[in-house]
Amino acid sequence: MRHWNWEREHLDEEYLAWHAETARACRRDIVQMTHLANSGHPGGSLSSLDFYLVMYAHANIDPQRPWFEERDRIVVSHGHTSPGVYSVLARLGYFPPEEVIARFRRPNHVFEGHIEREVPGVEWTTGNLGQGLSAACGMAIGHRLKGISAQHYVPMGDGEQQKGQIGEARRLAVKFGLHNITAIVDYNRLQIGGATSDIMPQNIGAGWESDGWKVNEVDGHDPVAIHKAMRAAVHDEAAPHVLIANTVMGKGFAFMEDIADFHGRAANDDEYQQCIKLSGDSAEDWDLEPLRQRIAASPQPCAELPSTYPQIAAGTPRTYAADQRTDNRSAFGNALLDVAEANAAGQAPPIAVFDCDLEGSVKTGAFRKAFPNHFFEAGIQEHNTATAAGALSVDGIVSVFADFGVFGIAETYNQHRLTDINHGHVKVACTHVGLDVGEDGKTHQCIDYVGVLHNIFGMQIIVPADPNQTDRAVRHMLATPGMFTIAMGRSKLPTITDESGQPFFGNAYTFRPGQGDWIRNGNAGAVVAMGTLTGRALEAVEGIRQTGDNIALAHVATPTEIAPEFLDELAQQPFIVTVEDHSVRTGLGACIAAAMFARGHAIPHLRLGVKQYAPSGSAESVYRSAGLDADGIRDSVMKFAKQT
Amino acid sequence: MRHWNWEREHLDEEYLAWHAETARACRRDIVQMTHLANSGHPGGSLSSLDFYLVMYAHANIDPQRPWFEERDRIVVSHGHTSPGVYSVLARLGYFPPEEVIARFRRPNHVFEGHIEREVPGVEWTTGNLGQGLSAACGMAIGHRLKGISAQHYVPMGDGEQQKGQIGEARRLAVKFGLHNITAIVDYNRLQIGGATSDIMPQNIGAGWESDGWKVNEVDGHDPVAIHKAMRAAVHDEAAPHVLIANTVMGKGFAFMEDIADFHGRAANDDEYQQCIKLSGDSAEDWDLEPLRQRIAASPQPCAELPSTYPQIAAGTPRTYAADQRTDNRSAFGNALLDVAEANAAGQAPPIAVFDCDLEGSVKTGAFRKAFPNHFFEAGIQEHNTATAAGALSVDGIVSVFADFGVFGIAETYNQHRLTDINHGHVKVACTHVGLDVGEDGKTHQCIDYVGVLHNIFGMQIIVPADPNQTDRAVRHMLATPGMFTIAMGRSKLPTITDESGQPFFGNAYTFRPGQGDWIRNGNAGAVVAMGTLTGRALEAVEGIRQTGDNIALAHVATPTEIAPEFLDELAQQPFIVTVEDHSVRTGLGACIAAAMFARGHAIPHLRLGVKQYAPSGSAESVYRSAGLDADGIRDSVMKFAKQT
Repeated sequence: MRHWNWEREHLDEEYLAWHAETARACRRDIVQMTHLANSGHPGGSLSSLDFYLVMYAHANIDPQRPWFEERDRIVVSHGHTSPGVYSVLARLGYFPPEEVIARFRRPNHVFEGHIEREVPGVEWTTGNLGQGLSAACGMAIGHRLKGISAQHYVPMGDGEQQKGQIGEARRLAVKFGLHNITAIVDYNRLQIGGATSDIMPQNIGAGWESDGWKVNEVDGHDPVAIHKAMRAAVHDEAAPHVLIANTVMGKGFAFMEDIADFHGRAANDDEYQQCIKLSGDSAEDWDLEPLRQRIAASPQPCAELPSTYPQIAAGTPRTYAADQRTDNRSAFGNALLDVAEANAAGQAPPIAVFDCDLEGSVKTGAFRKAFPNHFFEAGIQEHNTATAAGALSVDGIVSVFADFGVFGIAETYNQHRLTDINHGHVKVACTHVGLDVGEDGKTHQCIDYVGVLHNIFGMQIIVPADPNQTDRAVRHMLATPGMFTIAMGRSKLPTITDESGQPFFGNAYTFRPGQGDWIRNGNAGAVVAMGTLTGRALEAVEGIRQTGDNIALAHVATPTEIAPEFLDELAQQPFIVTVEDHSVRTGLGACIAAAMFARGHAIPHLRLGVKQYAPSGSAESVYRSAGLDADGIRDSVMKFAKQT
Repeated sequence: MRHWNWEREHLDEEYLAWHAETARACRRDIVQMTHLANSGHPGGSLSSLDFYLVMYAHANIDPQRPWFEERDRIVVSHGHTSPGVYSVLARLGYFPPEEVIARFRRPNHVFEGHIEREVPGVEWTTGNLGQGLSAACGMAIGHRLKGISAQHYVPMGDGEQQKGQIGEARRLAVKFGLHNITAIVDYNRLQIGGATSDIMPQNIGAGWESDGWKVNEVDGHDPVAIHKAMRAAVHDEAAPHVLIANTVMGKGFAFMEDIADFHGRAANDDEYQQCIKLSGDSAEDWDLEPLRQRIAASPQPCAELPSTYPQIAAGTPRTYAADQRTDNRSAFGNALLDVAEANAAGQAPPIAVFDCDLEGSVKTGAFRKAFPNHFFEAGIQEHNTATAAGALSVDGIVSVFADFGVFGIAETYNQHRLTDINHGHVKVACTHVGLDVGEDGKTHQCIDYVGVLHNIFGMQIIVPADPNQTDRAVRHMLATPGMFTIAMGRSKLPTITDESGQPFFGNAYTFRPGQGDWIRNGNAGAVVAMGTLTGRALEAVEGIRQTGDNIALAHVATPTEIAPEFLDELAQQPFIVTVEDHSVRTGLGACIAAAMFARGHAIPHLRLGVKQYAPSGSAESVYRSAGLDADGIRDSVMKFAKQT
């Protein structure tokens, strides 16, 4: 790879010659790959190209070691400029240019329509706009925690500036002094629907300035100006910089220039011929035949994305006594601190916690106190925080995003979806789920945490029954790669006990995903509970058992992955009643029903749970009004037992 | 009600006397109701109180007619200041003060922890921060469409200013000249976790200014200053104003003042006694006994929220011919235009369409051309747009939010959830769902539209099979109150035909939610398809039927509400295979499985669908690689038939 850095004050002739030659090749690549795919986004690729070249050529990156730890990170936020990104990476030696031209937007390779993290040189999969700066914030935080001094570059679209999440990220960067982030806006003044000034008038620079960024306007097609402004940004340790790069959509081919249609349209056959003429290259350079042959040939594999998850010791479980009442969120806070301490021997633990102004409620205060530099108070900016936590999670740090359920799940579902696509490992710790939120009322009732997150392929969902199970689940979650959500209520809960009165999830218990836990054995029907309501279900079941009906009680902590053996055990019962403070449409009851049908089982099933938003009131009164207090559960089970 | 307006330049003595007396009573109400509930948010209620009084006293509202059409709208965005809002409304005559003090945060009334639209005088349920200004934008658009000149006031928190959605709303307001919106920031400088300057440093005024708002800083406890600034805002037709009201959290009770803890904590018994002393009132005024008696008594009902949905004629269905290929999104665009025209006799139709820079792709262009003033290009600002569309939908206008699936569903789930809590009627028209998005790749694959929206109680989900069904479903959706999402792919589809070759969803067909449509009858097993894949499933089934196996094909357009009769018909089959380009975890297959189990049925079931994010490529190649092209479906069905 040709290699430069930010040391020298001015671009030299050698660079400028390389730039001119490479830009010419890249422009051809962009037109060719979109033309061959008959789809893609040439317009923004061509407008971003000159600053892509200056940036990639000067950044501390290495095509031979695409993922070396100390590398600078380039997070391209307007991911539809994939042709531009791929062509620059190819011309720098990350992969053969012909290979990406042949594979672009075809299902047999990683060169997808929007840039993907699997492509060497791409740091974050984007395509949903507005998330790139947040991701770079997460990465910059990771570098700080690891003591690495690296730069972070965030090319962005101009239409994208309309997204509110960008403002959130700007503020986070300034608050934490992430001055090693430089943003570059491809200000070509066009978006899909036309002029940005028609679609949504906006003073882009003023917005950045209002959040404390230094704004520099540059000619986005002049490498000298770009270099000067980027160099200044990199060397300024007082503030992060944004470059507003004045560019021309479709730059390089006159008939494409300033035409919004080429935002998302490839050159057709006639236009391809025009491009050849305008390029000044020989017709041979533009010959499609060798590329078509390459399409037909077997693809060359890319380097493989390395695994980065740190080794984490789970520490020693805490057992909460049988007569103790603790809230699951406190048990979470305790276990989080334990694990952090267990991995901090002589150094800082590879764990970071993100908060959105709810530290006291989500019980991360003890962690904060012990590891203040690993705690990131990100304010009431959930979208940004979820993305930043997600991006940090791929970088060798265990990234915990703690929040209320409605904010950490319903509000930020799409951010977690993107982290999943990025093979992230974020740990979402949500408290105040279910009706346990009590007086806060409908807007705060997170009664969809299973139903919403079930859609994320990589997300493992844990809903613990009591503080002991919470403790063990938190340790499992932190020590295990992958995305997790642990969903906890707000109130103090009784310790679930076995028939001998000992903690059920105590020292003999190991958390295993999928497992169904038989808290009470019986054969007259089974109650299957989830999370916060397990204590109430136990009280109800104990009441019924005293009348002689040998009702069983099981708990399922992982409703979206239930072991087949447990389902088969359930099928032996005359009936089942599921109990949850989650919507019955999509929660435990729905998961069990679908899973039972898939196993070929048919037994009577009553779904107790949330059927409409519940009123505001003390948690106990809300449960009572929804028929989900111990008495209500008992009555429903007994009535159902009689009917079946 | 005591009544003022913005005509007079200065506040008179009468107002000031009323203000002082009422503020004193309200402060007592706030402390009492939170103390009795032992929960709630007194701090911000007390800091917002003075501008609440000036605003509510001068706005064009009427406790006797809380929902008269021309009223000003007051959208309180920091909904946790419910004690302040309720006390002011009560003191203005909306309901008895004692009643709200007694019912606050108890499950037997509408006076919930966060303000709810069911309370007369409350325009929008808030509690999730950052959405109020967007809601006011939607309402202001509604007033414009109805030719009503009204003011819109949006009190907001200062911590809330961190939310990015507010910037999006600011830009929308300026773009559309919604200068009859005035925002007021309760700048008490504290949020739950402490000082706003510690949690997230921010230059609030500069942010608003950067988006084109006029910023006025005022003493938020001086009614004269507040009046002057609000009056200026109301009379300025050149720009919307924001008032930064410098206030004191807990204002009025010295020990509460400037203490972040009182953001969300009620006065305890000792503190209650302190409040009595500090108030200067008689101890009798603060006597809790009569209030406790009132708690025990039956609640007084409030006025009932009126229904506002307009009468909509559905127009005459279009039938796409058997040999025609049309994309569902074009059929949506055509039906939308038809219905608008059918309801525009001599006037503008009560329909508005919101777009996020995708007009050409979501096919709303014809509507825009015909009714340009009813089309709102809101830019790449989906959160704001979803909320604005939701708020407009409760105001007598049919509000259509058209977008790609990933943006209109995954990105904005929480906004739709809030609209549902507000009893909204928004119509979400999503295109590019499923794998039909083709080359755009993983980030754009909306394979969770059923699974995500299933969680919203009021959301009806329609996934039409072809352009004819789309046409009829769109007409049904627009003419019917309630929240709907219609989910459509991108590609041109064949018209689904019956065995005689006529359009199946043609003139004899009426769209009915819940209905299962038997496209081919048979008894050797049933394929049940959804949406875009129905044509491919038909091709597969026809292929199998030619080999002699009498496989049936049904279509389900409303996977989350399936008629029991249809399930019972399915149960007669030796097996079923569900076919969808949605995640198999949460889509049609999962819904049918859960519903079949609930009906007590047990038959073999194969779920064909999306099991992981699919690659980028032409839609056909993506379907092929996922085994969801006609050949893949046919092979899977035949293999499953042999196994069972």
